[in-house]
Amino acid sequence: MAADPTDDAYDDLTRRYERISNIEGAAGILSWDQEVMMPEGGTPARSGQLSALSAVSHDLLTDEGMGEALDALESSDLDDREAAVVREVRRQYERSTRVPTDLVEEISRTTSEALPVWKEARAEDDFSKFAPVVEDLVDLKREYAEHIDPDRPAYEVLFEDYEPYLGLDTTERILERLREELVPLIDEVRESDVDLATPFSGTFDTDTQEALSRDALDTLGYDWDRGRLDVAPHPFSMGTTFDARVMTRYDEADMLGALTSTVHEFGHATYTLGLPDEEYGTPLGENRNLSVHESQSRLWENHVARSQPFWELFLPQVKERFSGLDDATPRDAYEAANTVHEDNLIRVEADELTYHMHIVLRFEIERELIEGDLDVAEVPQVWNDKMEEYLGVRPETDAEGCLQDIHWSHGTFGYFPTYSLGSVLAAQLYASADDEIDGLEGEIGSGNFDPLHDWLTENVHRHGKRYTTPDLIEEATGEPFAADDFLDYVTAKYGALYDL
Amino acid sequence: MAADPTDDAYDDLTRRYERISNIEGAAGILSWDQEVMMPEGGTPARSGQLSALSAVSHDLLTDEGMGEALDALESSDLDDREAAVVREVRRQYERSTRVPTDLVEEISRTTSEALPVWKEARAEDDFSKFAPVVEDLVDLKREYAEHIDPDRPAYEVLFEDYEPYLGLDTTERILERLREELVPLIDEVRESDVDLATPFSGTFDTDTQEALSRDALDTLGYDWDRGRLDVAPHPFSMGTTFDARVMTRYDEADMLGALTSTVHEFGHATYTLGLPDEEYGTPLGENRNLSVHESQSRLWENHVARSQPFWELFLPQVKERFSGLDDATPRDAYEAANTVHEDNLIRVEADELTYHMHIVLRFEIERELIEGDLDVAEVPQVWNDKMEEYLGVRPETDAEGCLQDIHWSHGTFGYFPTYSLGSVLAAQLYASADDEIDGLEGEIGSGNFDPLHDWLTENVHRHGKRYTTPDLIEEATGEPFAADDFLDYVTAKYGALYDL
Repeated sequence: MAADPTDDAYDDLTRRYERISNIEGAAGILSWDQEVMMPEGGTPARSGQLSALSAVSHDLLTDEGMGEALDALESSDLDDREAAVVREVRRQYERSTRVPTDLVEEISRTTSEALPVWKEARAEDDFSKFAPVVEDLVDLKREYAEHIDPDRPAYEVLFEDYEPYLGLDTTERILERLREELVPLIDEVRESDVDLATPFSGTFDTDTQEALSRDALDTLGYDWDRGRLDVAPHPFSMGTTFDARVMTRYDEADMLGALTSTVHEFGHATYTLGLPDEEYGTPLGENRNLSVHESQSRLWENHVARSQPFWELFLPQVKERFSGLDDATPRDAYEAANTVHEDNLIRVEADELTYHMHIVLRFEIERELIEGDLDVAEVPQVWNDKMEEYLGVRPETDAEGCLQDIHWSHGTFGYFPTYSLGSVLAAQLYASADDEIDGLEGEIGSGNFDPLHDWLTENVHRHGKRYTTPDLIEEATGEPFAADDFLDYVTAKYGALYDL
Repeated sequence: MAADPTDDAYDDLTRRYERISNIEGAAGILSWDQEVMMPEGGTPARSGQLSALSAVSHDLLTDEGMGEALDALESSDLDDREAAVVREVRRQYERSTRVPTDLVEEISRTTSEALPVWKEARAEDDFSKFAPVVEDLVDLKREYAEHIDPDRPAYEVLFEDYEPYLGLDTTERILERLREELVPLIDEVRESDVDLATPFSGTFDTDTQEALSRDALDTLGYDWDRGRLDVAPHPFSMGTTFDARVMTRYDEADMLGALTSTVHEFGHATYTLGLPDEEYGTPLGENRNLSVHESQSRLWENHVARSQPFWELFLPQVKERFSGLDDATPRDAYEAANTVHEDNLIRVEADELTYHMHIVLRFEIERELIEGDLDVAEVPQVWNDKMEEYLGVRPETDAEGCLQDIHWSHGTFGYFPTYSLGSVLAAQLYASADDEIDGLEGEIGSGNFDPLHDWLTENVHRHGKRYTTPDLIEEATGEPFAADDFLDYVTAKYGALYDL
């Protein structure tokens, strides 16, 4: 029997891709180790190891043989599954081969150098120290985008590194709608006389907080055989379907913050654990992208862990861990978990409502930077004006304003919008799950998370990258992607909380 | 100015090698994580990641460009440092290119499958279950050796994977001399009426043992900024000069065993930390080989942590951690750390004297297996006969006999001798250090380990792979490699302990 050349090319493609995928998984473990385990002195070796892995992965992806396999499969007869694999590999191949290696290396070098500059500028509260690096990175990333597609706006091309399929026009529409509808709602909340309960003021021992985070992961059904919980300077999640880990941090003065971070990262890890084992090493065994990933973390953080039924279930566990909470009611805890604070300067501390104004502001600024419509030097002024306009507060320092995020020092312009897209998608998915699962709130209140896990696995996780983002959303919810469910959700929730 | 083609080829060679070195460092971290941190379910992804790294590293090493760079440097004018780099890279290149990739993969597959078979056979105490796998591995490794050098005995070629320069003839002479001199000494010890003290009988809380291991590492001068201590199923050490970690295990009933394991692995880690930072990523920044590595672990374990001055220093710290030891004297502890036990069946539990008979036995058996002079089925009988001859005890089960070690399931025939070579070398190095450092024992007794660290760094660590093993030993000690110092040391030590 003659070998089918399509089969050969497809096998070659998936073998190559599996190796790349494993190399990237190895880099994930090294990064995890660096954040969580590595002694301080280990940096020089770790930098060398990570850049070797990244170079190897780039070489494997842009190898001539990869291009030949893709070309051989161009007009061949593939089933849906194979066609999705080829679509995703081709997309990565095209983007990688179009950008010259020298430029990739220059970006990598510049971002390595940018990180300490950003840290220093933030420590000294002086954006002008960071500005020259941002200028370099803006230029480099603009050049990068031009190599990928000289015919489209650079910001649009950069955005597609993080969300390849929803389109910047859709994203812009969504973000504009959030701004239009949330700014007046936030004003109403700020004017409301309602004072929400503050049952968790005071300090909470961090070791006990860790035990409580473990309780929360137990309660939500984290699979400890395929995961672990550790402390890191910033909460994150990392891994494969066989081993997806959660990292969080504890602050004596902010027990709720640590808990919601843990649940947020649990949501990410749960997505990873729900990817199909049998597709490990193919694009179908990978998360769809950042927007969908963020929808999973926010669904568990916001729709579950900031809900009244969750606190009916979980508050008794908090009381078992900490004394002095006897009088707290689930309603108090629910209120505390959903308070809109006045001094709302820091994105990562924001509530579900004001959070998106932090994103809209960053989106507007970074797009203008990349498109050349805003000078880097003007960022602090524009930032502060927008804060005042959208949130009614004005940062008094750069550290509390335009220097608060690490992202630009990484050169990841176009990343911020995925956070809001994730929230919006979380609401749309949760609304569908709620429609399809009998008594979902009751199940959550009684600690049965299986129906929600099953729904998410069935409709989102198990597909990996099989569908594009819009198709995945339509398959899961029966509707195109839209902000309605999110706006309904926050309007109802905050309306009730603040008597609007 | 025209570029010097030698410089170009040398730069190309070192760039290539640095990448390989970083990839192998990454694999080290992944293996560490697998032993120490990884949740159980992570195995499928980890196997894939490790085999991808190993394939990439093999591809980089055997790349045509590597051969061209080596050829270009063949007759060029290199300084000593460069010549050593080229010698070491060429050796690895030659060995890797001579073995067909198919065979490498078959060996890798067979050893992966062998591990669970060995575990099961050991659990069921039945060597016949393990025998077919050993037969396969013997055949495969013989074939592997023939590819590397068909003109020399296969075992000699295999041995050089672990100790490339001392030569099997020298090794054999050393091992034979150990057998000739130690068997009668062991007989004398067994016939001695002396009963050594047993101050550490009873059980010891393992958390407190961990604290004590940290005390020991503090005392010996472990650099915590470039290391960490964790628990693993088997003690080991892993890392680079920037980050060399220690893993140990704790047994309630064997406090001394955990402590000496920690110090042993500290010795390995200290060698790695002493490698020259500025040579990271070149062979001159790598440990010489297993024999020299083992000399460092055994020097700290045996010559330091089993010495009377060490126990004068350290016993008070043990007493601070554990109650009930008020009557114990440093002499008691010294005796306990050097007891030759009657039921001496297990290699890893053996004292400094009988240990080498465990090695001689394995060396004799595995060489005969590889050379075709012994059938695998005969191993249990031969093993037990030799145990009786060399150690005066006969295992009653395969689990306590020829199934106790993991090594053959890894296919690492030729590895065992490096353990004894390491001990012998440790004694030779320690004798030289003792000659050259004023009052070394006094320094140890007073907790000043700097002179010993400095001597080892200066004479061994900082050279990396610059010298071949025999040259390194002559440079460090002024003498060729020999067993005299070791035999003098054990004869004096055990003679005094057992009144011989």
